[in-house]
Amino acid sequence: MTVLSPEDCAVFEAILGPDGVVLDRADMGAYAVAARYGAGRPAAVLRPRETSEVSRLVAHCVARGLRFIPQSGNTGLVLGSTPDNSGREVVISLERMTGALEVDPLDRTARVAAGVRLSALNAALEPHGLFLPIDLGADPMIGGMAATNTGGARFLRYGDMRRHVLGLEVVLPNAQGEVLRLSGGLRKDNSTLPLRQMFVGSYGLLGVITEVTLEVHPRPAETAAALLIPRPHAVLELLVALEAEAGETLTAFEGMSRGAMDKAFAHVPGLRNPFPNGEVPDYAVLVELTRSAPARDGQPSLDTHLESLLAGIAARDDTPLADALLGPADHLWALRHALSEGLRAAGAVVGFDLAFRRSAVFAFRAAACEQLASRFPDYQVCDFGHVADGGLHFNLLRAGGDAEAPARRAELRATVLTLAIEGFGGSFSGEHGLGRANQDTYERFVPGPVRRYSARLAGVFAEGSVGAFRLSTEP
Amino acid sequence: MTVLSPEDCAVFEAILGPDGVVLDRADMGAYAVAARYGAGRPAAVLRPRETSEVSRLVAHCVARGLRFIPQSGNTGLVLGSTPDNSGREVVISLERMTGALEVDPLDRTARVAAGVRLSALNAALEPHGLFLPIDLGADPMIGGMAATNTGGARFLRYGDMRRHVLGLEVVLPNAQGEVLRLSGGLRKDNSTLPLRQMFVGSYGLLGVITEVTLEVHPRPAETAAALLIPRPHAVLELLVALEAEAGETLTAFEGMSRGAMDKAFAHVPGLRNPFPNGEVPDYAVLVELTRSAPARDGQPSLDTHLESLLAGIAARDDTPLADALLGPADHLWALRHALSEGLRAAGAVVGFDLAFRRSAVFAFRAAACEQLASRFPDYQVCDFGHVADGGLHFNLLRAGGDAEAPARRAELRATVLTLAIEGFGGSFSGEHGLGRANQDTYERFVPGPVRRYSARLAGVFAEGSVGAFRLSTEP
Repeated sequence: MTVLSPEDCAVFEAILGPDGVVLDRADMGAYAVAARYGAGRPAAVLRPRETSEVSRLVAHCVARGLRFIPQSGNTGLVLGSTPDNSGREVVISLERMTGALEVDPLDRTARVAAGVRLSALNAALEPHGLFLPIDLGADPMIGGMAATNTGGARFLRYGDMRRHVLGLEVVLPNAQGEVLRLSGGLRKDNSTLPLRQMFVGSYGLLGVITEVTLEVHPRPAETAAALLIPRPHAVLELLVALEAEAGETLTAFEGMSRGAMDKAFAHVPGLRNPFPNGEVPDYAVLVELTRSAPARDGQPSLDTHLESLLAGIAARDDTPLADALLGPADHLWALRHALSEGLRAAGAVVGFDLAFRRSAVFAFRAAACEQLASRFPDYQVCDFGHVADGGLHFNLLRAGGDAEAPARRAELRATVLTLAIEGFGGSFSGEHGLGRANQDTYERFVPGPVRRYSARLAGVFAEGSVGAFRLSTEP
Repeated sequence: MTVLSPEDCAVFEAILGPDGVVLDRADMGAYAVAARYGAGRPAAVLRPRETSEVSRLVAHCVARGLRFIPQSGNTGLVLGSTPDNSGREVVISLERMTGALEVDPLDRTARVAAGVRLSALNAALEPHGLFLPIDLGADPMIGGMAATNTGGARFLRYGDMRRHVLGLEVVLPNAQGEVLRLSGGLRKDNSTLPLRQMFVGSYGLLGVITEVTLEVHPRPAETAAALLIPRPHAVLELLVALEAEAGETLTAFEGMSRGAMDKAFAHVPGLRNPFPNGEVPDYAVLVELTRSAPARDGQPSLDTHLESLLAGIAARDDTPLADALLGPADHLWALRHALSEGLRAAGAVVGFDLAFRRSAVFAFRAAACEQLASRFPDYQVCDFGHVADGGLHFNLLRAGGDAEAPARRAELRATVLTLAIEGFGGSFSGEHGLGRANQDTYERFVPGPVRRYSARLAGVFAEGSVGAFRLSTEP
């Protein structure tokens, strides 16, 4: 039973051809399953190849009052790109929107269709010595990366998608399926209100991004990495010391708790434990330095440079550095990238994508650990995060492994979120954006005026119902 | 004759005290004169000290239907912060809004009231080894810098204000004078629509920015600079070579035409001509490299590094580099900063603040020079610009010096703008923002849909009439 009439299906087929419309329940499965959480049920999956088709599909959906959900790589973690279980929501998949992929090496930009994957873009950029410096565990599509303002592990140096989006093409959810083109790839343009910015981080709620013009960067020519063990309570001091000594070459500063590292070593096959005698410290930081230009005659290698500056920091009277292990960057990143897999393998995880002023990260962490130890002693804190940007993937692993009563789990979530947001001025979605998974959190914690203006603002662009999230204004 | 009633004045004095309300025409003079163009005439100048006062002033203006114009440093160049000649517009000066100036060195941020000057912020940051890396000819206030999304000469490395604004407090132009606080200084926050972004580059049209939280950066520890003379038609190739060889240390790449340099040498007292035999080339580029971290043992100085990489570029078969003069950075910047003064002293200038995809800058420049030579031979092109970001201060100096018939001047402006915008996809306001000076250009060249959505979007926040510019939707 579907909400679609035979006429709807005929219209969709007329726009896309028969292979562009998926109605079979089994075939729709891949579009209905999110990277986390369970599966939904789409009314149909529509697979346009170009902007004009998106425009016609959107116009029809709006005219008919059908809610539609833009889906690109479907690698998000908050249920923002999959339908609910009602069978009433239409998925517009952008996976065949791969027509544009133009690199302009003099401009140092690329014009990219929404359905191009990050890996495909980087493959096209590599011959020019360029790359898009957004590093993620997944391989998303560019449209979704812009719609969710993706950050990543090298945010510290390169920033988020917003910093790289120089132009956008978007289909607005109105009865015309209006195509809006915003800023044609200019780095500087103060000749209009910054409309483009509204769509970067709009989570599919303001329309369908169909094309993006991106600033890209010279690829790293040299990389050096180390695992640092900070002295107790000195992680931020270590960060500030590195910012002062490594300057513009500092690319990543990733904190990892013993809990998270232990699970990775225990559960990820082939992962090497680099610590002396295998003794995992309470906390470690993966530091990466990169240079975009090759070393010149007489310039020490970046490894030597890193070793020297760490020796300088270690020699200080009040040093924040207890120990340092230099190693090949890919070995060290293997540990960082294994953390999620290790946790998933270890049992039932309650995860939070928190962000703070970076000076508040460890104060929150200490307060949370204390509260949890007394009220939820069966949960172990296994956090890691991009702490130089204030990001904290605060993961809690339940001893024994199995899921528990929904009410207690809800109480745990509320406890952590209240402390993070109200106690430490944090955000409940540092990177992942908005989707059905954090709908209730949004309604509870985002201030009323912000929700009210957000809904009004969405109303400027959206006549129809678009996206998996609702910009609710209820208290 | 003023539009204000005695009751209005009494309300303003009750809020601000007598010294907070300026009604005397002579005393209002400084608030009525823009950095370029002539003087307007305010109905009154209001000088609040804190956000609650701004809120009450705004509420009263909205309730009474008074248009008001937020003014911070009043260093803008497009008549965005001064009133017109009607005597009906109220100026809200933020110059006494200097209460907050808090630096958090661990967070590497500063919370700054709107009326704090850039120089005062940098003075407060210096003891922490930090600075706000937005370099301008003027010394604006932070509120205006955020409202106009200021760029500057080191945009290439550090970006614009948008990149640095992590939080905002803004008073909305509604009958409550509502105070909206957006993102409390988080680097990462994808938990709402990006409302904050709408106010960065809103030109005072959406409300009064009263406080800004900024990400700041380690101060440069080492600087090296050179004047480069590119081979003909090879400026962009030189830029790409430098991006590849200097990497993340490349901080500025400023193009200067012979016309602009000649006028500076002729008219700016004490300016040294660094070129051999004083022979000014057709085009020169000021290149700056900076390192945020001090050089370590064994690391060549940045001067040596720059010399070596320029030698490498010069030795290529197809080198884009004709000649290079290394020199103290402050001497070379003195030339760059003298260009505007030299032009003003040389005579009547028609100036444009253009921006392009950087691969289009020199194609536009060549086409414009050709058109001007045939149609406006009495004008000399004296351009300079942040060409690595596509920015081009395209200045035309009239031989003989004096002003000419307004109609021909208008024709000249239309010719250049049409070529820039319609011929080369450029912007008529790369950096300066929107004000009364470019109102007609906006209406003529910004596409109808963009103007329509901009006006609707402003309507979400603004009940009252705020700012010097009108977001017109007329064709």
